[in-house]
Amino acid sequence: MYFIAGVDIGGTAIKVGIFKSSDLELLSTFSIETPKKDPQGLDIFEDIIKGLKTHFSELNFEFKDLIGISLAVPCPVVEGYVTLAANLPWKNINVVNEMKKRLSNENILVCAINDANAAVMGENFLLDTPAKNLVFFTLGTSIGGGIIVNSQLLEGVHGYSGEFAHMIVDYRDKKVCGCGQKGCLEHKCSTAAVLEYAKELVEIKKMPSILDFKNLTVRGIFDNVSIDKVSKKVFDRYCKYLAICAANIALIIDPEIFIIGGGISHAGDPLIKNIKKYYNKYARFNSKSIPFVLAKRRNQAGIFGTVCYLKQFLG
Amino acid sequence: MYFIAGVDIGGTAIKVGIFKSSDLELLSTFSIETPKKDPQGLDIFEDIIKGLKTHFSELNFEFKDLIGISLAVPCPVVEGYVTLAANLPWKNINVVNEMKKRLSNENILVCAINDANAAVMGENFLLDTPAKNLVFFTLGTSIGGGIIVNSQLLEGVHGYSGEFAHMIVDYRDKKVCGCGQKGCLEHKCSTAAVLEYAKELVEIKKMPSILDFKNLTVRGIFDNVSIDKVSKKVFDRYCKYLAICAANIALIIDPEIFIIGGGISHAGDPLIKNIKKYYNKYARFNSKSIPFVLAKRRNQAGIFGTVCYLKQFLG
Repeated sequence: MYFIAGVDIGGTAIKVGIFKSSDLELLSTFSIETPKKDPQGLDIFEDIIKGLKTHFSELNFEFKDLIGISLAVPCPVVEGYVTLAANLPWKNINVVNEMKKRLSNENILVCAINDANAAVMGENFLLDTPAKNLVFFTLGTSIGGGIIVNSQLLEGVHGYSGEFAHMIVDYRDKKVCGCGQKGCLEHKCSTAAVLEYAKELVEIKKMPSILDFKNLTVRGIFDNVSIDKVSKKVFDRYCKYLAICAANIALIIDPEIFIIGGGISHAGDPLIKNIKKYYNKYARFNSKSIPFVLAKRRNQAGIFGTVCYLKQFLG
Repeated sequence: MYFIAGVDIGGTAIKVGIFKSSDLELLSTFSIETPKKDPQGLDIFEDIIKGLKTHFSELNFEFKDLIGISLAVPCPVVEGYVTLAANLPWKNINVVNEMKKRLSNENILVCAINDANAAVMGENFLLDTPAKNLVFFTLGTSIGGGIIVNSQLLEGVHGYSGEFAHMIVDYRDKKVCGCGQKGCLEHKCSTAAVLEYAKELVEIKKMPSILDFKNLTVRGIFDNVSIDKVSKKVFDRYCKYLAICAANIALIIDPEIFIIGGGISHAGDPLIKNIKKYYNKYARFNSKSIPFVLAKRRNQAGIFGTVCYLKQFLG
């Protein structure tokens, strides 16, 4: 039996899935914290290989039977090359080559795909009838996206298609984003932005709240929407800016469906309903009719899609 | 010799081109004012046929040799059906059927395509090497657009792809647009919005200006940018909001090239340079590198592309 690994690299955690290479059956998963020691982010590759080796030995799998590693990366990537990653220290780096260099076995096929493109491939593959035009949002540390147009992945020319986090939703915004620009969706809907806004409401606006600010998470906030006014306000702002972004995308892509995935999508139906409520406010013409649904694989879509992507090179 | 007519219906004027059907050679053009008498906009079809008949007789062409009419319409259209047009009185109307009803010859093939999609087809056809991913803006009474992705026209599912005029560029804007929503690009960059802003600067902000407000046109304003401060301010606002819109589109479509067409593109290189200046301010990552070029056919792209579209049904 041969294996391939799907690796989904996020700003906070790296998720890994070990798949049977023949039929893409998911055999095992593990997760490691994204290392932050190396200023160039090269420790990411080392920690992935270390994690894979440990996990293979725990499962009694032979590491030499690993024939492919597919990286889903949280940034634009063209043929392995990453110019800049907003949430990782990578700059002008070929992530495929860096991974290959550190592997003793030269026969392991390594490839890289944008994480949201990976997710959209995985999710569309899992639909009963794959969509012709589809827009996928991954809600996590940041906001990613993947697009299918005319039944094909929209990869774009420079690798920027689906970089929804940096769409301008409020050009008057003065805060400077990790990308160097202002007014990005990221500044309203990243994990950091959500937590900061909750703190601002309590500390500066002096709103009373039941939230525990020592262990605050986005999930913790979204779970308290029905009983806590701060949580409701934070949740509404999140859905509002996401909806503005989706309303604009609808006028460009005009999809059959919006799919919402990523870790934050575990907030479930109340999240979908609230996004849809704001979407109906901002959507133009009858693009209001486009449905929003939860991703089936949620935060596993990245590892699933990335092996779908690699599989096409294995022949 | 057989003929086909390409008809580009705008909010202000209707442009018509008569083409040789065999090789799409443009034989003659004429233009009529968009009629505004009928509250349902049915006079549009009557005036087009009247204009065609008059023009055919002037050219000594036989009207019975007209074998196709292709309509480029300034609104979403799916199989001839228009739900709503922001700049025309059409509502829930099948424009293909309305046209056919008024023609004595049932053999004339009639089809309809969004005007910006028509333009993008025409422009891409005219490039030395057609682009794989391309975004086209038509700057006229309003702002239209057409998109090519993976070498195919992006038509979308409901006919809304490329409706750039209604993208939200300033969601805090209070003015209500023709589409019923707020914050649209149309409210900053339509002909009406440009003229209104110029008047506001002079009448309310009391800025001195050499502009002749009795016969004011967008072209008149853009031609005076180097010598008139009001014109410069109006021109800059126009380019700024168009650039914000383009910066967002770049993160979705990630094209090789932006092409600028439509009547206002006759302002030429200074317009392209100023859009690019603002685009460089708002574009994320190195999507700044995407070039902006003037359309080759400018305001003839619509009539040219619409016959390219019809030609495929003629076989």
